[in-house]
This record gives sequence, C-alpha cells and structure tokens, in this order.
Amino acid sequence: MAKKGQLPANFKTVLEKGDQIYQPGISVDCTIFGFHENVLKVLLLKVNHSNKWALPGGFIYKDETIEQAAYRVLNERTGVDNIFLQQFNAFGDPHRSDPTIHQNRYLEYGIKIPKGNWLLQRFITIGFYALIDFTEVDLEDAKRTEGAEWIDINKLSDLMMDHEAIVLKALEALRTQLAYLPIGRNLLPKKFTMPELQKLYETILDQKLDRRNFQRKMIGFGILNKLSETRKGGAHKAPFLYTFNDKKYQKALKEGLYGSW
Amino acid sequence: MAKKGQLPANFKTVLEKGDQIYQPGISVDCTIFGFHENVLKVLLLKVNHSNKWALPGGFIYKDETIEQAAYRVLNERTGVDNIFLQQFNAFGDPHRSDPTIHQNRYLEYGIKIPKGNWLLQRFITIGFYALIDFTEVDLEDAKRTEGAEWIDINKLSDLMMDHEAIVLKALEALRTQLAYLPIGRNLLPKKFTMPELQKLYETILDQKLDRRNFQRKMIGFGILNKLSETRKGGAHKAPFLYTFNDKKYQKALKEGLYGSW
Repeated sequence: MAKKGQLPANFKTVLEKGDQIYQPGISVDCTIFGFHENVLKVLLLKVNHSNKWALPGGFIYKDETIEQAAYRVLNERTGVDNIFLQQFNAFGDPHRSDPTIHQNRYLEYGIKIPKGNWLLQRFITIGFYALIDFTEVDLEDAKRTEGAEWIDINKLSDLMMDHEAIVLKALEALRTQLAYLPIGRNLLPKKFTMPELQKLYETILDQKLDRRNFQRKMIGFGILNKLSETRKGGAHKAPFLYTFNDKKYQKALKEGLYGSW
Repeated sequence: MAKKGQLPANFKTVLEKGDQIYQPGISVDCTIFGFHENVLKVLLLKVNHSNKWALPGGFIYKDETIEQAAYRVLNERTGVDNIFLQQFNAFGDPHRSDPTIHQNRYLEYGIKIPKGNWLLQRFITIGFYALIDFTEVDLEDAKRTEGAEWIDINKLSDLMMDHEAIVLKALEALRTQLAYLPIGRNLLPKKFTMPELQKLYETILDQKLDRRNFQRKMIGFGILNKLSETRKGGAHKAPFLYTFNDKKYQKALKEGLYGSW
C-alpha cells in the first residue's frame, strides 16, 4: 500500500505506548440498534480502504471503567452521546482477532507493526448494546471522519472479524429483554395506535404476531392509556390512539412486565 | 511472614511466565449458587492465611475461550464439574484489584513480587453464575486443597475485593432469569408440592409471596403436571404433588414462561 503521509500522532501513541495507557488485550464494542418507522438498523463504521464494516469499538484506558470506555469510544467514533448502553456479553474466541486489520491501517502510512506489538495480540471484547430512534442521531460529523452508517439489520454483510456474531448476540439479548421489560417509549410518537406498537415488536422479533393476542397481552400489562381519539385518514376503521402511562411504564421497567410474584 | 518452604512450580510459572501463557489483565470468577431445602448458599474459597473469602476464579490461557477458562478454573479450584455456567457481567472498576492478595501469597514463600509484574496490574474479571443443588457436589477433595465451603447467602462477610458485589450482581441476574424462565427441575425432588415450589422462589427472591397468586401464576405457565397423589404426614390438609412436564418445561426454557408473542 502507498505511503499516504505522516503517521497521525494518536496512531503513533497507540503503536508505541498503547500497552502502557490501555488495558492490554481487551476492547469494547457497541451495537447500537436504531428503529424508525418499522425498520431496524444497526450503526456501523466503514473500515478505511476496505469493503468491511465494523462496530464502533476501542480500547479501555487504564484509569477508566469498562462502561466509561464504551461511552467514550461510541462518542469519539460516531459523535453519538446520551444513549443508555447495556453490557451484554464478552466475546473471547482465541482466534477472533484479526491482526491484519491493524496492520493494514498502519501500512497506509508505510509503517509495519513490529512482531510482538500489543496491537497484534489476541483481544477479548466486551459487548454493549442500545436501542434508539435512529432519526434522533445526527451522523453528519461522524460521516466525515469515520463513515458511520445505519445499516438495515436484514442486510448485514461484510462485517469484520466476529462483529456479525456480536450483532446477532446483541439482538438475542434485545429480544430477551422484550420478553419481560417494556419498550417503545422513545421509539414511537407520543400517541400511537396498537398496530403501530405491534409493528415495533414484529420488527424487533422479525416475525408476524397475532393481532388479538398481542392486544390482549399489551393491555394486560397495564402500561398503556387508551385515548378517546382515533387516528383518522386511513382506509380502514380509524384505530384508537394510546399513550404510555409514564408511572406504570417506569414501574414495569423495574419490576418486569409481569409484575412482582 | 515466615518462609514456609520452596515456591511450588506452578507459582513460579505464574510469576515468571504468566503474562506469556495467560491473557494479561483479565480473569474469570464463578458465582455458584447452591439451593437445598430452602437455603440458598454460594460456593466460596477461604483465602490462605487470611480471614477473607473468594469466589473460585483464575486466569484465561491464551489458547482457550472465556467459557473454557471458567469451566477449567471452577473444576481446578473446587473439583466441581458438569455445571452449566452462564456469563452475566464483566467487572472493570480500575481500583477493583488488590495486589496485596497476590503479594501475600508469594510472601509466604519469602518471595516479593517485583514491581511491574503482571500479577500486580489491574484485572478486569468476567463473571459467570450457576444454580445447582448443593448436596450433589462433593467438596471433600476441594476442602483439602482450597477450603471450599457453601456459605449462606444471607451470611456473607469478609469477601475479598469486589467479590460480594459480584455475588449480588449474579443474584440480580438469577432473579431476572426467574422472571421469565422456568427453574427448579434440578433443585426439587421429582415430585413436589406447590408450597415447596413456592419456597424455592421465596428463597431466591428473599421475599414472601402470596399463596394464591403464586399458584395461579405457576399453573398458568402450563409447565406442571398435577398428580392425583398427595403428600401425607403433615399436620395440615395433605397438599397435592406435582411434577414438571418435561416437554413444556423445555419449551419454556427456550421461549420463556409467557410463551411466544
């Protein structure tokens, strides 16, 4: 690969002193799910000069917690902030790391990472996930520097290393969460119809649900207020509008949808 | 501290070559919950020559997965095998490690761990948990070597470092699991009464439950077979016996207690 210019200062630091300023052999990776109008996407970064995509990830400073590292890395790499991240799994296959990714990044500047350098070792990564409304995130800043994009969860391809497996495991964690915790308050408009709520669940679960069962179950949770208004304008009978009952929604977030024993 | 004899070979290897054979700065710790006759305990090891207790834990070889390390470490340190371990959280406070624990272990042999040695650095630990019947584990072998004991969950004291916080977080994960997955098949006799099942839940949740609600909920899950037999011999009206319906129990383990959407 051609030499493109001088090695940036942060690249030099990571190469030469990374093992002194970061925890060795460990990283964090963030799976940010975005939902909007019945589409579920995931936030990915184009790996420079390759056709591969990567989760926003990075190293852990010696003086920060894993959680602090996850928030910092996500912000540094995508500009995204104020998202509640949940740790869900550590990924530690001994062969998951691909040293050529770091190698290629440095080769662009004509630098070959020396054998034995910490960047070329095995990394265990700790996975975090979040679910947000992707229209509320402005990726313009990020796009300029890192090529951040929202990619449809059903159109994942060419993810580097084990990042597709990480996304799928995060999706599993999200679906488990859906089974016992409320969801949707930041993903739907303030007033929504039962079909809209059902679509949210169907999109995350990637399956069709029975309309009557869903409605019965949802109303049974007691987290919704039915309004007297209806959504007008459709071809069908105008469906009723609902809002989340804030207090009961918060309670269910703590105790689970099925309440206490 | 007095010099007690020659440094064992494995201590020497860990000290001198540990950073070459293990992943640096990372460990695993296992929280093994044991239930029997309405008592919930946790498997702890007495830290040599101290009043502290520790979770069974250890390092990750460079060529093994995190899961392999957890099973190996648990077996090496307690003799326990064939337990299904679940990863639940990574603990990474920058100040969680206590280098004096390793230091004291080596000082018993008159060895001072040199400054900068990998054992004295910050460790991130990945937590696993399991719930078993503690009468099915023979700790005799373990007791001879490491002082493994089942300690009542309500009588935890003097755990080293952040191990009590790890146990409490594992308990939280177990209680969350209880809210949407079946439990008890390996913890109760094959035939059991509803009060016995309720006691299991009450013990894990550490709270009294309403008898009628509990029964209605449990029967609603459809995972129990009610037998025509009753448990005789008590002072009260003989309660009916139940067994788990294997097929439905397995289904609920996959799909959750509340079934599919």
